[in-house]
Amino acid sequence: MAQPQSIFIAVIGVGGVGKAFVTQVQHLQPRLRKANPPLDLRLILVRRSKQQISSPKYDNLDLSKVLDELSSSKDSLPPLKESLEYLTKAPGRAVLVDNTSDPELASTYPDMLAKGISIVTPNKKAFSDDLSLWQKIFSSAANGTGSPKSGYVFHESTVGAGLPVLSTLKELVETGDEVMKIEGVFSGTMSFLFNSFMPVGGGGGKFSAEVKKAKELGYTEPDPRDDLNGLDVARKLTILARLAGLEVQSPTAFLVESLIPKELESCSSGDEFLDKLPGFDGQMDELKSSAAKEGKVVRFVGSIDVPSKAVKVGLEKFDASHPIAALKGSDNIINFYTKRYGSNPLIIQGAGAGADVTAMGVTGDLLKVAALLRQN
Amino acid sequence: MAQPQSIFIAVIGVGGVGKAFVTQVQHLQPRLRKANPPLDLRLILVRRSKQQISSPKYDNLDLSKVLDELSSSKDSLPPLKESLEYLTKAPGRAVLVDNTSDPELASTYPDMLAKGISIVTPNKKAFSDDLSLWQKIFSSAANGTGSPKSGYVFHESTVGAGLPVLSTLKELVETGDEVMKIEGVFSGTMSFLFNSFMPVGGGGGKFSAEVKKAKELGYTEPDPRDDLNGLDVARKLTILARLAGLEVQSPTAFLVESLIPKELESCSSGDEFLDKLPGFDGQMDELKSSAAKEGKVVRFVGSIDVPSKAVKVGLEKFDASHPIAALKGSDNIINFYTKRYGSNPLIIQGAGAGADVTAMGVTGDLLKVAALLRQN
Repeated sequence: MAQPQSIFIAVIGVGGVGKAFVTQVQHLQPRLRKANPPLDLRLILVRRSKQQISSPKYDNLDLSKVLDELSSSKDSLPPLKESLEYLTKAPGRAVLVDNTSDPELASTYPDMLAKGISIVTPNKKAFSDDLSLWQKIFSSAANGTGSPKSGYVFHESTVGAGLPVLSTLKELVETGDEVMKIEGVFSGTMSFLFNSFMPVGGGGGKFSAEVKKAKELGYTEPDPRDDLNGLDVARKLTILARLAGLEVQSPTAFLVESLIPKELESCSSGDEFLDKLPGFDGQMDELKSSAAKEGKVVRFVGSIDVPSKAVKVGLEKFDASHPIAALKGSDNIINFYTKRYGSNPLIIQGAGAGADVTAMGVTGDLLKVAALLRQN
Repeated sequence: MAQPQSIFIAVIGVGGVGKAFVTQVQHLQPRLRKANPPLDLRLILVRRSKQQISSPKYDNLDLSKVLDELSSSKDSLPPLKESLEYLTKAPGRAVLVDNTSDPELASTYPDMLAKGISIVTPNKKAFSDDLSLWQKIFSSAANGTGSPKSGYVFHESTVGAGLPVLSTLKELVETGDEVMKIEGVFSGTMSFLFNSFMPVGGGGGKFSAEVKKAKELGYTEPDPRDDLNGLDVARKLTILARLAGLEVQSPTAFLVESLIPKELESCSSGDEFLDKLPGFDGQMDELKSSAAKEGKVVRFVGSIDVPSKAVKVGLEKFDASHPIAALKGSDNIINFYTKRYGSNPLIIQGAGAGADVTAMGVTGDLLKVAALLRQN
């Protein structure tokens, strides 16, 4: 057997995704310790908004207890900067697992990568905010144009959660295919809303009622306007467009249709918004019946036309036989139209939200980093 | 800029896929030479059944000319063993690109891997013949349980061509998901045949006529019986089942339905078979009308039920609304039912055959190997 190799891991953010990630790593550890060479994925720091636990001597924290210990910890939270510095001093290669949606943490990526720390994350902010941050990240990363001693960065779960969306797009581009168009349903919330509001074959409730139902089932953000404004989809489209080679400045640099009626933009709370939304059901019903007359259904989609550099987020009509129309539940679907694949797109479909599948994308990225850092 | 790194490449088999692969590498070279560190993918040997060209001093062969030179070469073909030995003596890490379906070459993989040569290939034989070969390959590979100094082996294109089927299944398994069932259409030929024979919504020709048409369009093997016997699909299922953790002994170790009528098994040629096939259209018509009565269509599918270890290849009926029924052209579709993904499967769909997309899977694997061999 070859010498064991250790990778030091810091997890920031232990909400639903962070917790699922820790559980997945816990299940992985025994198998990886038996690999050749043995791989020791060593958790050394766990941090959330008000608490942190770290291992002073870079020993492995006990994953079966660490989340409980974190909840009961009364220690004061050290500044983020100090925790990151602790990570850069780990006695071996280290990975920062950012399970937050914190733009401040995202802004530290270029510096961390340059210091040799790898990053795996479902945090969309880092990759969809201003283009300059994207460029700094990839010019600092070993899997960008940075030094081979830099860290690697992977962010599969920023689009479609654990679905292999970004890895597939990267492979199409890297092997020299020409991506013509990317089109799909990129939000579990929007998928659920429109599959319920206007199912293929007729039926479905009032739009405002479907929004309320989606909120009750936990399919929306606490304030449903954060889904209905289209910004989440716009961030995902920004990431895909950049990977396809377009220099998209920000998620507000292209047409994004909001489903929040103008008159309700000024509502002071999500509850007030939900109370007033039924007053606008007429508009949505009109849309529904006009689509039905053409034998179509309405869906909230994003699309990128690569040659014309057109990025678009909003409502579109689709034939009942179109794969986008036939989507079920809160599934995502992503269609890649490319030169090699011709008229029938390469399609990826499945759950695009949820703690377990999002964490799976993060864990998968961690395993990719571990394989790349392994000494041959 | 860091020191350039070279990877030495030998290509065996330059039919449609091999030619497309060489073209793809040719397009990649300039970009990779500008990477950090510069990566020199150096083609040093090209071999096919009757000719070979190699570079005595391990210099790069000119990819724009090598295929023409190969065709006009009058040199006698050295034994395979000699060519492989030449590759193991390359002054750096080397990759064998096996674009053949040669079982003899496949049998050399364990030895080549142990000698540090990586392998990327669409050759199904190596991974679907007897289980003992599979075990030898992965106990010799760096990405199996072999030494970290061994070569890596990737074979994405053995199932679904360039579609990300195997990488997705591996990630599901490695991150600890439980795969319950895998079901899909795994043959472009069978997809085309049944989408034409029994399209959703009615219509379609006689089965024997569709087989003839498929042959004329180049969608079948020269002898269509090589598709209709189901063995190609059985090989793919064997590979998927093994990756899902089942110890499938061989592609004939489970139920495979052949579409060759018993009475025609003894035909001496593909042409005689095609002449006599119309005599059996009645059976297929009966199947069609019995499915139609249930509002279903017939498709030729493969399925793996992981908990019960049941692997099956053959005809099944599907509701017209099922994604498998709605497939178009010669597309493949693969549904992964897993614990994490719940009742809606993770679906991958698109062209599963053709030189360009098959070569893309091979080129993508080559880039993975290059990233793993890169010295950090």
